[in-house]
Amino acid sequence: MRTVAIVGLGLIGGSLGQALRRTKRYRVIGISRGAANARAAKKAGAVDVASHQGSDVSSADIVVICSPVDRIVPLLKTLLPSMKSDAIVTDVGSVKGSIMRDVARIPGVKRIQFVGGHPLAGSHKTGVKAAHWRLFERSTVVLVPGARAALKPLKSLWNAVGAKVMIMSAAEHDRAVALISHLPHALAHALVHVLARRKERAKLIPLLAGSFRDGTRVASSDPEQWAQIFQANAGSVKAALKDFRRELAQLESNLSQPQLVKHLKKSQAFRRPLFNGI
Amino acid sequence: MRTVAIVGLGLIGGSLGQALRRTKRYRVIGISRGAANARAAKKAGAVDVASHQGSDVSSADIVVICSPVDRIVPLLKTLLPSMKSDAIVTDVGSVKGSIMRDVARIPGVKRIQFVGGHPLAGSHKTGVKAAHWRLFERSTVVLVPGARAALKPLKSLWNAVGAKVMIMSAAEHDRAVALISHLPHALAHALVHVLARRKERAKLIPLLAGSFRDGTRVASSDPEQWAQIFQANAGSVKAALKDFRRELAQLESNLSQPQLVKHLKKSQAFRRPLFNGI
Repeated sequence: MRTVAIVGLGLIGGSLGQALRRTKRYRVIGISRGAANARAAKKAGAVDVASHQGSDVSSADIVVICSPVDRIVPLLKTLLPSMKSDAIVTDVGSVKGSIMRDVARIPGVKRIQFVGGHPLAGSHKTGVKAAHWRLFERSTVVLVPGARAALKPLKSLWNAVGAKVMIMSAAEHDRAVALISHLPHALAHALVHVLARRKERAKLIPLLAGSFRDGTRVASSDPEQWAQIFQANAGSVKAALKDFRRELAQLESNLSQPQLVKHLKKSQAFRRPLFNGI
Repeated sequence: MRTVAIVGLGLIGGSLGQALRRTKRYRVIGISRGAANARAAKKAGAVDVASHQGSDVSSADIVVICSPVDRIVPLLKTLLPSMKSDAIVTDVGSVKGSIMRDVARIPGVKRIQFVGGHPLAGSHKTGVKAAHWRLFERSTVVLVPGARAALKPLKSLWNAVGAKVMIMSAAEHDRAVALISHLPHALAHALVHVLARRKERAKLIPLLAGSFRDGTRVASSDPEQWAQIFQANAGSVKAALKDFRRELAQLESNLSQPQLVKHLKKSQAFRRPLFNGI
């Protein structure tokens, strides 16, 4: 039985806690800023012990920092003195380059084993109330070394909750998520703004159907968290936007041409097998 | 009891047939090109009588043409001689300008009452097997006059299956759907193409999560049908793309700026109430 401290009990931290406890192979200490959130996490079955004292990381073999992106490095700095020597520490932040760089600069960080982490799972819903123990099932978690010796126990931890693990460099990760996650988020926001800016928007709203709903769903995500993510990965996001604009121009130039069907068939065929037909 | 002929028994025609039959106020004759499709519609409970003979529209008070966009006008031309005098005829095509114009030019069309129609409901799934009697529930159907006297019975028909009716001009409709439906479809295809063109795509596929899935869902729609829709509404689609590019540029220029949070908050707040929190 290993002891895992989850720092930050929102959707990700709460779901991870629930899933780890169900394996019966991990004891979960949940640490959150507020006493109310700690109680909610306990009630949601996400933790064995809820605490709002950072010093309680001291009994953990593995510490998983599940805070918003801009809090990860400050929290690690604050909690470092309380951590066991050689404790395995990871995070769930959606960007890795800036975090890996800033963590490496923390004085005394060598006494722990840090590996960057990013579970590609989530929801536009937030908070421990939205937690679900199956959130990571069949998902992929990227691990960024960091401390090579810590990869195996972290792989075991994520496998235990149903996720596959991929090991990537921070730069490779950040380019990948710019395309597959940050770009769709940017498009969703821009699409909402197109409608919001129209004078006749009130007349258009009753007409909205599935394509607009799904194409904008992630614009309902937390704006503070997403501003941090976009800003921390601005370079790769801009590169992805450039690629996107090129593809959109290509589509537009085909719009009145006979090759449009072929162009649409190509994207349809590429997408169809990706999500089990969903 | 009114007799409705549904011409074309796919997702829309099949769902309409199922829903009308449940009201017990309409008798439904389903007409499809193939005998196999007619049998499938009968089996799915979408029709009282299935036929693959166009001449069977002759008993219908109301004819609803539920074919792909490019078949609507040819079908109307072919079936016109078999229709009752003063029969009410409508369609479900996603564009209205070109259809209204071409219908008005059909010789002898004055002997029937034509109103353009477009139910804002659907799915990327196709065929009568995907039909569902609740497809139109709480959706909006646009009616484009056409024959003013036919509006009331068509409003009753769509209300009976749970839809609200909005009356618009063809031009107004085509501008509206370019923004709320055709634009999201175009973005979905372009987003798939960005990934499909990447050399490292095989490595990126395991990382795909909810934002890419939802942002590209409608790229799985039927390419032939969508090529027709884009081409029939190319002018309005290009105008919507122009608006979109402006918004995307705005987002990009805010990417590293403090006002990014405010920008995202605005779209989040605008979208949140639109789809009952989905």
